Amino acid sequence: MWSRDFSFFDFPDQRVGIELVVFGAPFDGTSSGVPGSREAPGVIRSVSNLLEDCSPILRKNIWDFKIADWGDLEAIPGNPEKTLDSIEKGVREIAESGAKPLMFGGEHLCTLPVIRVLKERYRELYVLQLDAHTDLRENYQGEIYSHATVMRRALEVLGREKQLITYGIRSGLEEEFQLLKSCYSCGTPRSSREERLELLKQYLSEIAPAPLYVTIDLDVFDPAIFPATGTPEAGGIFFDEFIQILLLLEGYPKLVGADIVEYCPVLDSTGASKYLAAKVAREVALLLVQ
Amino acid sequence: MWSRDFSFFDFPDQRVGIELVVFGAPFDGTSSGVPGSREAPGVIRSVSNLLEDCSPILRKNIWDFKIADWGDLEAIPGNPEKTLDSIEKGVREIAESGAKPLMFGGEHLCTLPVIRVLKERYRELYVLQLDAHTDLRENYQGEIYSHATVMRRALEVLGREKQLITYGIRSGLEEEFQLLKSCYSCGTPRSSREERLELLKQYLSEIAPAPLYVTIDLDVFDPAIFPATGTPEAGGIFFDEFIQILLLLEGYPKLVGADIVEYCPVLDSTGASKYLAAKVAREVALLLVQ
Amino acid sequence: MWSRDFSFFDFPDQRVGIELVVFGAPFDGTSSGVPGSREAPGVIRSVSNLLEDCSPILRKNIWDFKIADWGDLEAIPGNPEKTLDSIEKGVREIAESGAKPLMFGGEHLCTLPVIRVLKERYRELYVLQLDAHTDLRENYQGEIYSHATVMRRALEVLGREKQLITYGIRSGLEEEFQLLKSCYSCGTPRSSREERLELLKQYLSEIAPAPLYVTIDLDVFDPAIFPATGTPEAGGIFFDEFIQILLLLEGYPKLVGADIVEYCPVLDSTGASKYLAAKVAREVALLLVQ
Amino acid sequence: MWSRDFSFFDFPDQRVGIELVVFGAPFDGTSSGVPGSREAPGVIRSVSNLLEDCSPILRKNIWDFKIADWGDLEAIPGNPEKTLDSIEKGVREIAESGAKPLMFGGEHLCTLPVIRVLKERYRELYVLQLDAHTDLRENYQGEIYSHATVMRRALEVLGREKQLITYGIRSGLEEEFQLLKSCYSCGTPRSSREERLELLKQYLSEIAPAPLYVTIDLDVFDPAIFPATGTPEAGGIFFDEFIQILLLLEGYPKLVGADIVEYCPVLDSTGASKYLAAKVAREVALLLVQ
Amino acid sequence: MWSRDFSFFDFPDQRVGIELVVFGAPFDGTSSGVPGSREAPGVIRSVSNLLEDCSPILRKNIWDFKIADWGDLEAIPGNPEKTLDSIEKGVREIAESGAKPLMFGGEHLCTLPVIRVLKERYRELYVLQLDAHTDLRENYQGEIYSHATVMRRALEVLGREKQLITYGIRSGLEEEFQLLKSCYSCGTPRSSREERLELLKQYLSEIAPAPLYVTIDLDVFDPAIFPATGTPEAGGIFFDEFIQILLLLEGYPKLVGADIVEYCPVLDSTGASKYLAAKVAREVALLLVQ
Amino acid sequence: MWSRDFSFFDFPDQRVGIELVVFGAPFDGTSSGVPGSREAPGVIRSVSNLLEDCSPILRKNIWDFKIADWGDLEAIPGNPEKTLDSIEKGVREIAESGAKPLMFGGEHLCTLPVIRVLKERYRELYVLQLDAHTDLRENYQGEIYSHATVMRRALEVLGREKQLITYGIRSGLEEEFQLLKSCYSCGTPRSSREERLELLKQYLSEIAPAPLYVTIDLDVFDPAIFPATGTPEAGGIFFDEFIQILLLLEGYPKLVGADIVEYCPVLDSTGASKYLAAKVAREVALLLVQ
Repeated sequence: MWSRDFSFFDFPDQRVGIELVVFGAPFDGTSSGVPGSREAPGVIRSVSNLLEDCSPILRKNIWDFKIADWGDLEAIPGNPEKTLDSIEKGVREIAESGAKPLMFGGEHLCTLPVIRVLKERYRELYVLQLDAHTDLRENYQGEIYSHATVMRRALEVLGREKQLITYGIRSGLEEEFQLLKSCYSCGTPRSSREERLELLKQYLSEIAPAPLYVTIDLDVFDPAIFPATGTPEAGGIFFDEFIQILLLLEGYPKLVGADIVEYCPVLDSTGASKYLAAKVAREVALLLVQ
Repeated sequence: MWSRDFSFFDFPDQRVGIELVVFGAPFDGTSSGVPGSREAPGVIRSVSNLLEDCSPILRKNIWDFKIADWGDLEAIPGNPEKTLDSIEKGVREIAESGAKPLMFGGEHLCTLPVIRVLKERYRELYVLQLDAHTDLRENYQGEIYSHATVMRRALEVLGREKQLITYGIRSGLEEEFQLLKSCYSCGTPRSSREERLELLKQYLSEIAPAPLYVTIDLDVFDPAIFPATGTPEAGGIFFDEFIQILLLLEGYPKLVGADIVEYCPVLDSTGASKYLAAKVAREVALLLVQ
Repeated sequence: MWSRDFSFFDFPDQRVGIELVVFGAPFDGTSSGVPGSREAPGVIRSVSNLLEDCSPILRKNIWDFKIADWGDLEAIPGNPEKTLDSIEKGVREIAESGAKPLMFGGEHLCTLPVIRVLKERYRELYVLQLDAHTDLRENYQGEIYSHATVMRRALEVLGREKQLITYGIRSGLEEEFQLLKSCYSCGTPRSSREERLELLKQYLSEIAPAPLYVTIDLDVFDPAIFPATGTPEAGGIFFDEFIQILLLLEGYPKLVGADIVEYCPVLDSTGASKYLAAKVAREVALLLVQ
Repeated sequence: MWSRDFSFFDFPDQRVGIELVVFGAPFDGTSSGVPGSREAPGVIRSVSNLLEDCSPILRKNIWDFKIADWGDLEAIPGNPEKTLDSIEKGVREIAESGAKPLMFGGEHLCTLPVIRVLKERYRELYVLQLDAHTDLRENYQGEIYSHATVMRRALEVLGREKQLITYGIRSGLEEEFQLLKSCYSCGTPRSSREERLELLKQYLSEIAPAPLYVTIDLDVFDPAIFPATGTPEAGGIFFDEFIQILLLLEGYPKLVGADIVEYCPVLDSTGASKYLAAKVAREVALLLVQ
Repeated sequence: MWSRDFSFFDFPDQRVGIELVVFGAPFDGTSSGVPGSREAPGVIRSVSNLLEDCSPILRKNIWDFKIADWGDLEAIPGNPEKTLDSIEKGVREIAESGAKPLMFGGEHLCTLPVIRVLKERYRELYVLQLDAHTDLRENYQGEIYSHATVMRRALEVLGREKQLITYGIRSGLEEEFQLLKSCYSCGTPRSSREERLELLKQYLSEIAPAPLYVTIDLDVFDPAIFPATGTPEAGGIFFDEFIQILLLLEGYPKLVGADIVEYCPVLDSTGASKYLAAKVAREVALLLVQ
Repeated sequence: MWSRDFSFFDFPDQRVGIELVVFGAPFDGTSSGVPGSREAPGVIRSVSNLLEDCSPILRKNIWDFKIADWGDLEAIPGNPEKTLDSIEKGVREIAESGAKPLMFGGEHLCTLPVIRVLKERYRELYVLQLDAHTDLRENYQGEIYSHATVMRRALEVLGREKQLITYGIRSGLEEEFQLLKSCYSCGTPRSSREERLELLKQYLSEIAPAPLYVTIDLDVFDPAIFPATGTPEAGGIFFDEFIQILLLLEGYPKLVGADIVEYCPVLDSTGASKYLAAKVAREVALLLVQ
C-alpha cells in the first residue's frame, strides 16, 4: 500500500552480487558557466521512475539485470580536492565489489577520479568522450583541476593521446584543437553526421577488445534537445545520432564503466532535459550489463 | 472598429452547410505525467489568430472552405465516464450535421468516443496514430479508461489490429510492443526517417480508399520542437518529417476526421509549442477540407 | 560515505513507537484550475532536507521527537472514489498504530477520508480550515466529491456547522458565504489581520480542550509568498500572520492531526513556494508532537 | 452542451441598455521597459471566467448589473497617434450609448483619449491615479506622447494640477516630484499605509460630488503581488491596502469610468499576476455599477 | 586586477583603422508578435564574452582582425521614423570610416536604413535574406514602415526583385509568395535542405562578384534551437544547415555588411537562444573580415 | 549619438577624487543551495541604468556625488582562498585611494576580506548584518571558509560578539542562535516589525559614532519581494521595513562601507528581484555619500 520510490528505477542499494552500481557525484564547484549540476543525480533518479523499464532501442528490460543504486558520494562546495578524493574512494569500493560504475555528475571534473581508479585495474584503458568542448586546457584561471582541464588530466592518467576517442566536439581554444589532432577525433564541426559515425565505427574496431570507459558530457547534445546545461553550444548531436552511437557501442566487447555529467536542473525550464538525461542513463545502464 | 477574435481562425459557430467542425475537449483527468492539457483548446484558438491564413505547404487558404468552431464540450474533472459521454454526444451531433470533426484535446483518452461515433458511420474505419507511446495497455493502475489504454480500447472498437497504423512510437511495455507487431507499425525506434515514411506510404496505398481517421498525440514530435507535453520522449519526429507525412496524406482519398491531443500549456515556457500546435491544427484542418 | 536522504527530514518508515506519521496523498484528479499537486509530497520531502532541524519560532528541534515518514499512498488518476478509499485505509492504519497523521496532498479532497477516520475516534472532532476558498458547494459540475465540495462533505461527517473554524477565506459563491455564517468564521475579506487573529483566539478558547484537526490549503497564503497553487487568490495571509496562528495553536491542548494541501510544483517557477511549503510542514509537525 | 466563454465574465457585446462597457486597448508602442501589455485584454478576459461572480469585498454579484464587453479597439504597432485616435473614437461611441467605460490597456498612454472624451462631458472631471511612477514628464526622448508623459498631457486636458489625485507614487525625476506637490498627492515614499489612506479619504471628501475617473497603473501594486509589469518598482501597495481604497471609493457618489493598464503577460511567469489583474477588474467593474 | 568586459568580445570603440564595426539598434516599436528585441544588443555582447575566440568552423580567431564595437544607436519607442534616421546616420558614419557594418537589432525594420546607405555606395548591391517570413507586405495595418514590410521597402531601394536572394522562408500571404517568385528564392517549404543549399550555391555563383549584404532574421532557425523570437515558425533550419550556408558564403568575394535581428531576450527562458545568437554573431563577424 | 552604458549608473572608473567605489566580487563557489550569484554584479549594473537617478526616499540625486565603478575583481571558481585574497587586495586599493567600498557579491563569504581591510583602518569597527541566516557556524562540511561560516570568521576579526548587530535572522542551528544572544540581535522570529526597528534604533544610538559597516544578504527580504536567492526563507522583511532601516541609517554619523550579496539571477524568473537589488544598491550608495 505504501510506496517509497527514490532510487534509480527503484533499485536497491545492495552491495553483493551486483553487476552495475549507479551513484551520484553532486559537485559543481569549478563550473565557469551556470553552476547547478550538483542537483542532477537526485533529479535523474526521480524522473527514472516515470520511464518505461524496457528499451525499444537496445531491446532489453532493466529489471533483467543486477543493478544497484548506492546513493550519492560526499561533495564539498568550494573544495575540489577533497571531493575528488571522496569520489575516488567511492569508485574504488565499487570496483572492489566486482561491479562496474555508472556515475551521475555533477560537473565533468568528477570524471577524473573514476578514470584514475579504472586505469589501476585496466592497464590499456581507453576513454570515449562525448562532449561539445575539448576540456583539454593545461589550466583554467591558474587551476589545474577544473571542468575545463579534466580531459588534459585524464590524458596524463591514460598515458598518451591515442587512448582517447572524442565525439561531437565543437568548441575550444586553438591549442586544444591542435592537441585533439593527436587523439582519435571523430571529425570536426565541418563534418557531417555520417562522417562522424563512420570514424567512430572505425576507431572502435581498431581498439577492440581493449577496455573502454564512456564519459558523456550532456552538452554533446544540441541545446534544442538538451538546453539545461551551463554552457550550451549550438550544432550538437540529436537523438537519432545518439541511437546510432548506442548501436555501435552495443556490439563493443568490453565496456567497463560510464558517466553522465553536466546536467543543470535549474536551467531545465521546459522539463525536457531531465527526461532526456534519464533516458540516456537508462540506455547507458543497459549497455553496461549483459 | 471593434474586434472579437476568439474562435479558431475567427471561424463562426455556424451549424449548417459546414464541411469541418472544430471543437475542444478540455479533459485531462487520467494524465499520469504532468496534467494541464485541458487548457489546450483555448490556447490553440488564441494563437491561431496570429498565424497566416494560407499554408505554403498545402497551398490552400483556410478561408476558402466552410469551417466552423463550435466551442468546447463539457468535461468533468475527476469523472472520465461522464466526460466520454459528453464527447460522444457532441461528435454525434457534428456527424449528423454532415460535417467532419476536428477535435482539440485534452488528453488522448478523448479520442475514444470520436472513434466510436465514426465507426458507427464507417464500417471499415482505419485509424492513423501519430504518437510517441503505444497507449495499448489492457489497464492502467486497474483503470480500463486511461490515456495509457486508449488505443487498446480503440482496437476493440475497430475490431482487429490491422485497422490501426502507428507512426513515431518509441516507448511502451514489452507486451505493448508485442501487440504492435500485429498492427501496421511504421518502423521501430531503430528505423530511419526514410524507412518510416516509406512504410507509411505503402500502408496508405494498401488501405485506400477506406475511410481514415488521424489522431495526433503531439508527443510524437521531438521535445526539441514540442516540449510542452506531459511525458516528453526523446527521439521524436521533426517538422520536415511531419511535412512529408502531410504530403502523403494530401493525396489520400477519404479522410473522415482528426484530433490533436496532449498539448500541455503550463509546460510551454518558451511559447514555441503553442505555435507548433496551432500550425499543425491549420495544416490538419486544410487536409480535411476540399 | 554514501547518503540516501529521501524522506521528510530523512525520517525512517518505522511502524512502532511513533508519535507522528508523515505521508503523501498524490492525487489531483478533481482540480478545476491548474492541476499538478500530485507532485507535492515528493517535492516537500526533497526540500525538507535543505531546512534547518530546529524552528526558532516554536523553539523545538524536529529530531527530539518520534516521527516517521511512511511514504505515499496509492492514488489513481481519474478515479476519486478508489483514491479516497486508499487514503482512508492508510490513515486508519496510522491511527491504529497510535500515531497522529500529517498528510501532504494532493488536492483538498484528500482531506475528507482523514476527517472520516478521525471522527470515528474523536466524537467531538473540530476542524480548523486555513483556506482562500469556502469549498462548501453542494456539488461541482454534478460531482459530489471535489476539491470544491470537500468542506461541505466534511460538515456532513462532523455533524454540524459549529464544528468548523475557518480562517483566511476570501472567495466563494453567495450561498457558500451564507453557509459560512453558521460556522466559526474568523472574519470576512474586509476584516483586518488583528480582527482575524482575535476571533481565532476566542474560538479556540471556546472549544478547548476538544480534539482539533488542522487542514491547511496553502492558497490561504497570499500568492506573493506562495504563487504555486492552482487557483491563486489575492489578499491572502503573509508569514508573520501565520506565525501568530502557530503561536495560538502552540498552546492548544489537543491537536489530533493535520494536512497541507494544494501545492502545485509545476507552477513554482521561482522556487520560493517549495521552501514555504516545507517550512510550514516543519512547523506543523512540531505543533503535533510534544 | 457547447460553451464559448471568451468575453469578460462571458458578457455579451450588446449595445443598448448597458450601464458599463468593458473594452480593450491593446497598445504598448511607447513602452520603455519590457513591452507586451498589448496582450493584457485577452488574458484578463480569459482569466475572468475562472473567478467567482460575487465579490465578498463589495458584496455584489457581477450578474446583477448591465455590463457588456465590446471587444478590442484597433491599435497600430509603431503609430501612437492613430492608436490614440482609434481609442478616442471608441470611447466616444461608448459615452454616446450612455454607458461608462472600463478600459483594459495596453500601456498607460491609452488613458489619455479616455480622459479627453470624459472631460468633454464632465467639465469638472477629477482623475484618481494609482501608480508607481509620476508619468509627468514634459517629453520622453523628445516625444510628447508616451507612457512617461501621459499624466502631464492629462493635466493639460484637465486644466489644472488640483484636478489630479495621486496614490502610491514612488519613482520619478526631481522636477516631476516638484510638480506633484501642486496635485493632491497621497503622501511620499516615506509615508505609511495609514497616512496614505487618510489623505485619500480627505481629498475624496473635498472634491465630492464632482465626477471622478480612476486610472490604475497596475505597477502601483508591490512587485511581490504583481510582478508582471514592465518597470517593477519595490515598495508598492499590497492587496489589503487596495481593499481599503475600494471601500473609500465604494461610497463615492459619482464615478464616471476607469481603466486598468500596464499588465504585461509575457512577464507573468508565476501566473499570479493575471489573477490579480482580473480580480481588480471585477472589483472596479462593481464599483462603477449601481 | 579589475575587469570591465562589456562590448562585443571586449572590442574597443576605436574609430580609425577598423575593418568591421559592430553596433546595436535597440528598436522594436513595430513588432506585432511579442516585442522585446530592443534588449538583444546588450545580451549578445554580454554572452559573447563567454564564447571561445576562435571558430572551429571558419578556422579564424576573432582577435586577428581589426574589429570595433561602437555601442548602441539612439532608438525612440513609438517613433519609427526618427529611429530609422538615427540608424541611417550611424551607418553612414561607419561607412565613411571605411569599415563594414555589423548591426545587432532590434526588429527587422532596422535593416532598411543600412541597405539605404550601402546602396548609395554599391550600385549593384545584392541582399541575402535568411528569414522565416516574407516581410514583403505593401503595408501592415496601414503603415508602410514595419517589420512586416521591410523587405518590400528594401526591394524599392534595390530597384528590382532579382537583387534579393531569400532563404528559409515558410510563412507569408499569398500575394507575398507570388512576389517571392520574382526574387532569387531558395526553395519552398516543401523543399529539402539539400535543394535549398544547392539553389543558394547556384545563385551566389550567378551574382558574384557583386557586393552582397546579409540580413539574418534569427527566426530563420527552427524554434527548437532558437525559441526566443516574437513569431516562432516551425520547420526552420538547424545549425548544421547554417554551417553549410557559412561555408558557401566563406568563399564569396565581396561581403559588404550584415545584420542579425529579432532576438527577443524576454522569451529566452532556457537561455539557449542567447548563446546561439552570439555564436551566429561571431561567425558572421568572421565572414566579414579578411 | 553612440551610447555605451555598462557601469553602475554609467559611472566612470576614475581612480582619484572619488568618495565611493562600487565593485563586483563574482564568486559563489561555496554556495550550498542554488549557486549563481557570481552573475549578480553584471545584472545589477545593467538594471541600474533603467532606474531614476534620484531617490524619493533619501531625497538625493546620485549624480550629485563622486562615485566610480571600478568593475569586477578576479574570482576563481573552485578556489575560495585565492578569491578572498583577490578581494582583499582590491578593497585595500580602494581604501588607499581614500574612497569607501560598496561591493556587489557574489556569495556572502566575499564579505570577509572587506571586513578584514576595514578592521585594519578602523579599530572599533562595527558591522550591521541584514540577513535571514545566522552564518555563524564554526565550520561547514569541514570547511572553515564558507557562506555559512562567514560571520563567525568576521566575529574573529572584529574581536568580540558585541561588535556585530544582526537584523532579520530567522534560520540557523541551535548553537548559532545561542551565540547570537551575545551579539546585538534585533529580535527573534517571534518579534514584530516594530520591535525589530526599535532595537536597531537603540543599538545604533549606543554605538554611535563608531565606524559602521553594513552587509546586506538580500535573503533578509521576504522571498515574496526577492525570490532570486539560493536559500529563500519565508518570513522576511518587506520594503517598507527596509525604508525604515534606511531612515535610521540616514542619520548615522560614520558609515564606512557596505555590500549587497546573494542575488542569484538564474532564479529571477519574474525579473522583479533584479529591480529590487538595483534599487537597494542605489539607496545604499546614497547612504554612503554626503
